[in-house]
Amino acid sequence: MKKIEGNLNNRIEIEEIKNYIGRTIKIHGSIHKIREMSSFAFIILRTKRQMVQCIYSEEFSKFLLSQIKEEACVEFLAEVVNEERSKTGWELRLIDVEILSEPNEKSTIVFNNKEIEASLETLLDYRAITLRNERERAIFKLQEGICKGFREFLLKHKFTEIHSPKIVFSGAEGGANIFSLEYFGKEAYLTQSPQFYKQMMVGVFERVFEISPVFRAEKHDTSRHLNEYTSVDFEMGFIESFEDIMNMETLMLRYTFDLLKNEYINELNLLNVNLPDIGFIPSITFTDAKVLISKEYNRAITDEFDFEPEEEKLLSEIIYKKYNRELVFVTHYPSKKRPFYAMDDINNKNFTLSFDLIFRGMEITTGGQRIHELNQQIEKMVSREINTELFESYLMIHKYGMPPHGGLGLGLERLTSKLLNQNNIRLSTLFPRDISRITP
Amino acid sequence: MKKIEGNLNNRIEIEEIKNYIGRTIKIHGSIHKIREMSSFAFIILRTKRQMVQCIYSEEFSKFLLSQIKEEACVEFLAEVVNEERSKTGWELRLIDVEILSEPNEKSTIVFNNKEIEASLETLLDYRAITLRNERERAIFKLQEGICKGFREFLLKHKFTEIHSPKIVFSGAEGGANIFSLEYFGKEAYLTQSPQFYKQMMVGVFERVFEISPVFRAEKHDTSRHLNEYTSVDFEMGFIESFEDIMNMETLMLRYTFDLLKNEYINELNLLNVNLPDIGFIPSITFTDAKVLISKEYNRAITDEFDFEPEEEKLLSEIIYKKYNRELVFVTHYPSKKRPFYAMDDINNKNFTLSFDLIFRGMEITTGGQRIHELNQQIEKMVSREINTELFESYLMIHKYGMPPHGGLGLGLERLTSKLLNQNNIRLSTLFPRDISRITP
Repeated sequence: MKKIEGNLNNRIEIEEIKNYIGRTIKIHGSIHKIREMSSFAFIILRTKRQMVQCIYSEEFSKFLLSQIKEEACVEFLAEVVNEERSKTGWELRLIDVEILSEPNEKSTIVFNNKEIEASLETLLDYRAITLRNERERAIFKLQEGICKGFREFLLKHKFTEIHSPKIVFSGAEGGANIFSLEYFGKEAYLTQSPQFYKQMMVGVFERVFEISPVFRAEKHDTSRHLNEYTSVDFEMGFIESFEDIMNMETLMLRYTFDLLKNEYINELNLLNVNLPDIGFIPSITFTDAKVLISKEYNRAITDEFDFEPEEEKLLSEIIYKKYNRELVFVTHYPSKKRPFYAMDDINNKNFTLSFDLIFRGMEITTGGQRIHELNQQIEKMVSREINTELFESYLMIHKYGMPPHGGLGLGLERLTSKLLNQNNIRLSTLFPRDISRITP
Repeated sequence: MKKIEGNLNNRIEIEEIKNYIGRTIKIHGSIHKIREMSSFAFIILRTKRQMVQCIYSEEFSKFLLSQIKEEACVEFLAEVVNEERSKTGWELRLIDVEILSEPNEKSTIVFNNKEIEASLETLLDYRAITLRNERERAIFKLQEGICKGFREFLLKHKFTEIHSPKIVFSGAEGGANIFSLEYFGKEAYLTQSPQFYKQMMVGVFERVFEISPVFRAEKHDTSRHLNEYTSVDFEMGFIESFEDIMNMETLMLRYTFDLLKNEYINELNLLNVNLPDIGFIPSITFTDAKVLISKEYNRAITDEFDFEPEEEKLLSEIIYKKYNRELVFVTHYPSKKRPFYAMDDINNKNFTLSFDLIFRGMEITTGGQRIHELNQQIEKMVSREINTELFESYLMIHKYGMPPHGGLGLGLERLTSKLLNQNNIRLSTLFPRDISRITP
């Protein structure tokens, strides 16, 4: 019988190297790039989060340069030397190498330059190796930071994290855009949103959140749609107005962007990210926005119930010009275009107490207040010819008591993609799923 | 145009009440229980995480007791009064009430006693309201704490959080236990594990983790199986031995249990949880464990390649008797029973460098070292008649270079359930999915 005591190998992390100047250390990683110069070579070591430049020279290196190749996994014995010209203040002189594993062949796709020169298709087909590129991987490190920020903020504000099921018996939004599967002889669906579950849990914990995959069987093949994405959902009870939710989101984004500045500065710099100012976020009603866009650009209003993607872009342009702001809330969307659980505006039943958040021309959040009274909910469902019997366990919360409440869903990949000013959401999706892509 | 500045309503949280003794405050929540005494009444208010006892009396309350009912959502005006006999050191004397919403009817299932007296079926059928019970909801608050502990630990140890797709083109484990769905005219599957993706990402970030749903179409209808569960997965590169993974898990559990003691003490007390001691975790090989169980209980070994559930229980009993430990690692499982990516033991090819972690008689973790060399991987796949062409993007990592690596998957609901000494995993699953349950 052995005892596992929780002992880790004491390996030096990059951040600690500065404490070892003048000493010999062991450091491990993948050989990202070998750059041979006239009398020496730069060896770029890929470590967990940083690329580390090492110097090979016959003067001090006890191995042959030909012994190592790119993408080999190695442990180097190296001397840490003071070097004022280096950004870090030190450089690593390689003394010896232990080769831990070697690639079988060299990839024809070059991923160890600053950027990968390849089509989007190739970038995604070879994701397992193209993500080894310094910039490509930084995108997903930054995405980790966004989730870290959201979670920290929500836990501080006493939201409880939940795990709701992804296989469901009926869709949240209804409609055709839903994947179905056979579940032990019954028909089941993949969830489009944790909507019903987070509402149920408001009755339990008052405030809840979940960051989890959702599935949309939409046949859109655009640069802004995915068929599976990561949804950041929160829902809160005892609100006085749907603006409470918008205020909470504003605070959450502010907290998260501050966290990125503090903990992910290398990635922000590497990707040239300009974080938007969110001292405040302007808010405009749907109707006012429609008129504003129409006036400013002399466009006819063709769809009075929804935005065209082009209009979201134009609205962002106007807001940026007038208020120097890159985010804008649009409120009071038409009831017709919002789901059955959306609460209508008491002042005008054709509109809902709802909002979208538009960031740099694209909707990244949809939210609003939900109906909490049973009769009001049933009435709205009946008027839409929804079979209330199918929603028995959902309507239980209305029947047995629910506080005024609301919440939102935010698309993690959309937010990431817009932060990076990308032209395609797939670039901020680790392994995208779209109408024609299901691999890798 | 409005400006949303991120202002929240300044509401008093329970933890702050002690600073308001002698003052009048507003406090909101759901009326969990009304207990009428001879000349006054106790009103138990359900807030985000605590039940708060309030006193109603005609002496100081300006409203009628008949005005409020259980499960109404209210805001009370109350005086905070010093009360040494109370656990908190204060009590709340209700002055006035604002009723924010009211239930339509009273539930026939009583959920505001200490425990709910109902069958498991009823408990789950009425999940939306049975979770309002103090103990029921504490289970999931504790589960939040487990996730918080894991994430904090893994981020501190430089694991990168990833989001891998749940709709996949082939299963991780293969076999029949996989849900399939139609994906735009193609056949696709629901992931059984993020295995391939986390391995791919080891080549990118060295250490990665994901906490996400996985799906198993197993027809088992037992107290320990779910068809959808939350899997805690991590994978790490540059390991020297598969024991590095076991050490990391030991540390992760130690960190998490310490966090629960610090931040979730109320839930631990409420649920009478005894956290296991993990100063060390004993480790025994599969073969030795089989022999040990056989000897100690005078049982014949009927299946030499796997444990029967009963054997896991007996092993736990032995380990507890001999070492006073409630967790035990079992290592070197037979190759035959492990997936194709498991690395065989160089000393005996019939066994793998793998482990399970057994906690109070149930396997909660499976892990091990993976094959990182291309030829070794292909050879093992061919010997199992696996079509390597289907795994092209997976094998890319072996071809283009991978460090020695390994990882594990831990079932969140199993761990929670065993911590609470429950007899059914469904009790620690928010909305369980099993062979006969897909609602609510």
